[in-house]
Amino acid sequence: MSKSIFYHAGCPVCVSAEHDIVNLVGASNVDIVHLGSETSKISEAERAGVKSVPALVTPNGNVLHINFGASMEDVKG
Amino acid sequence: MSKSIFYHAGCPVCVSAEHDIVNLVGASNVDIVHLGSETSKISEAERAGVKSVPALVTPNGNVLHINFGASMEDVKG
Repeated sequence: MSKSIFYHAGCPVCVSAEHDIVNLVGASNVDIVHLGSETSKISEAERAGVKSVPALVTPNGNVLHINFGASMEDVKG
Repeated sequence: MSKSIFYHAGCPVCVSAEHDIVNLVGASNVDIVHLGSETSKISEAERAGVKSVPALVTPNGNVLHINFGASMEDVKG
């Protein structure tokens, strides 16, 4: 199975969701991307369909938006 | 590890998220509850903190609201 990608921006709700996702899916099955520090990944996330963070992009390309932390517009600042 | 509980109400976004969650977490690690057919579970879901479906309640009691399908008010009809 290829990896999922968890996009977040460092907000408290993101970090809490990150811990839950890593526990559930397994740390080896998910890449964590912090869009606040890795701004070059923002366009990649948008192309994947990410509309808000935290979000999990599954290996088959579906996007699960989890809770609602911040819109992509907020992340871009 | 105890099981997670995935609450949904049969809407298309719920079913899509259900497939993703089962694939990611593993079918043996998650109980699926359809609040549309098991209306007696609605109060249990609300006590767990579920505010909209689909939602995943993790073994440690955190609630991950996934995308946004329907509010609990809509589920109650």
